[in-house]
Amino acid sequence: MANKSTPNLGDATASPFELIRKELDAVEQSLRDQVRKFDPGVEPYVSYICDTAGKRIRPTLSILVGGATGRVTDDHLKLGMILELIHMATLVHDDIIDGANTRRNVPTANCKWGDGIAVLLGDALFSHALMLSTEFDDLVLSRSIASASRDVCQGEILQTQRRFDLTLTKNDYFNIIEMKTGALFAAATELSAYLSGVSQDVRSAMADFGMKLGTAYQIYDDCLDLVGTEEQFGKTLRTDLEKGKLTLPMLYLLEEAGDTQREILQKRIIQQEELDLTVLAGIAEYQGAIGKSLQYATDLLREARESLSLVKASAYRDSLAQMLEFLLELLGSLQKA
Amino acid sequence: MANKSTPNLGDATASPFELIRKELDAVEQSLRDQVRKFDPGVEPYVSYICDTAGKRIRPTLSILVGGATGRVTDDHLKLGMILELIHMATLVHDDIIDGANTRRNVPTANCKWGDGIAVLLGDALFSHALMLSTEFDDLVLSRSIASASRDVCQGEILQTQRRFDLTLTKNDYFNIIEMKTGALFAAATELSAYLSGVSQDVRSAMADFGMKLGTAYQIYDDCLDLVGTEEQFGKTLRTDLEKGKLTLPMLYLLEEAGDTQREILQKRIIQQEELDLTVLAGIAEYQGAIGKSLQYATDLLREARESLSLVKASAYRDSLAQMLEFLLELLGSLQKA
Repeated sequence: MANKSTPNLGDATASPFELIRKELDAVEQSLRDQVRKFDPGVEPYVSYICDTAGKRIRPTLSILVGGATGRVTDDHLKLGMILELIHMATLVHDDIIDGANTRRNVPTANCKWGDGIAVLLGDALFSHALMLSTEFDDLVLSRSIASASRDVCQGEILQTQRRFDLTLTKNDYFNIIEMKTGALFAAATELSAYLSGVSQDVRSAMADFGMKLGTAYQIYDDCLDLVGTEEQFGKTLRTDLEKGKLTLPMLYLLEEAGDTQREILQKRIIQQEELDLTVLAGIAEYQGAIGKSLQYATDLLREARESLSLVKASAYRDSLAQMLEFLLELLGSLQKA
Repeated sequence: MANKSTPNLGDATASPFELIRKELDAVEQSLRDQVRKFDPGVEPYVSYICDTAGKRIRPTLSILVGGATGRVTDDHLKLGMILELIHMATLVHDDIIDGANTRRNVPTANCKWGDGIAVLLGDALFSHALMLSTEFDDLVLSRSIASASRDVCQGEILQTQRRFDLTLTKNDYFNIIEMKTGALFAAATELSAYLSGVSQDVRSAMADFGMKLGTAYQIYDDCLDLVGTEEQFGKTLRTDLEKGKLTLPMLYLLEEAGDTQREILQKRIIQQEELDLTVLAGIAEYQGAIGKSLQYATDLLREARESLSLVKASAYRDSLAQMLEFLLELLGSLQKA
């Protein structure tokens, strides 16, 4: 288990989640109910994924935004459940792509049953989720959910395609993480507001909140990969460097390093050599690059906080604000690392 | 190129397809139009898949059934295009699972860009198709398309799971191929009839026609893998045996072989040893097992022909009947092989 001393955005024992404990339990129950809708031969695989993948952040967002924009209904729970299924599908496929053997300390689907089953299992989860999305009897929802899913895949393709690619700009990076992580967060918050029947302004503000929270979370995760300690976070780190993934701190570092250091870095990237942490840590500008990335994420979260001012005060809005505070704390802990 | 002396269900120069040449061209054009709806960085991958995967059988079915049940509309073309995108997505993923390097003599996506990009590319095609399905403004269509897609994935999972599995029955096999191949064929024919606004009887008959044609086609393909010659068919054969896939001829063979031969077969299967053709061909009952499988498919096609009697006579109905005749000829050619 990860060390619990560091707060975790997906830590369901934390107070913002206590408010909606009952609703989160209902989402969990409905995920189990969905498992039984698969062919009996497929059910055990799906059940394993439900038990081991996904931190329920997307359902948390859809429930909290539901409460903050009106009243939490069954549809808000259902939206969260559907988005979590899609998220699970992407995790199963990501683990194949990354060749990951464990996730949260248990074997991944590809490790347990091979890449073939894992590819198909992700597909089955994905198509099941999109089938469920048609049960809303509202095409806006089905369309937006399918579109967000497509964005996630496209973001991942661009990221994979541009490994070891020196021409990647910070804008390219933001575009990629907005698609791969922001899109499903934004779907959770925007569509939840849409279900509450709010004005277009509030709906846009909630989309903005989700997008910024998701993007900041991804930047945090990308910094964590460089700065975190495996003992503390219970996950394999340093994988981005190995895979040539140029994340925000690397892009800042390339921008700010002295000519000699930049040349060394560029040479390693062009030759698709693994970049290891000792090389990076030896560069004077490295700490600054991490700091700038954390600052960028911090600024995003402050903007996200402003989006919240468009909904009236409530315990739900407070919990959404608390999610931002959590992530700000996490960013702060990396600054000190 | 495959030798053209053998008719091919997907041979677009054949006469059943001449009738709808204009409509098939329109589907082709709309597939190209869809390519441009992806992110510019993703477009070239999607374009390659459009050029190299899929024989447009599903659009052919949706157009012909559209004509046979009323009038071919843009919606029938769109349905065909969406189902072809889903089919392409499954081909991309199948090639990863099978470790296939070529498809129709050109490199597969996984061969060209690696498994990672191929997983994501299939996902992007898939989510794009399901997003398009919401444009019909009819939830029955979106839901049925997502459900058929899920069936395809589940069928593939069961098939992968039950490789080298001696407890697989013929019923299990039929269940698997109805899901993995029948479901999308049946979606093409049933939903096309639905778009024409026909009675439930006609809609069911068209569903039945598609399911039986698809199932018979899969049995043909499974026999081809054993009996065909690579020169004649321009594709890699004998892969099912290598992968422990127990197809209908193998199931008949296991049922009918003498005790000694069955024990040899079972032992090889249980030990997950590759089964090669010389072993099989040496078993007296082998030809009979192939013959029974071809007969089963032939019977299905005769039943499918009866389903056609529920729509009134037309050139479109004749073309659907001709597709059955084509497949009957193909089955006959394997019987003689």
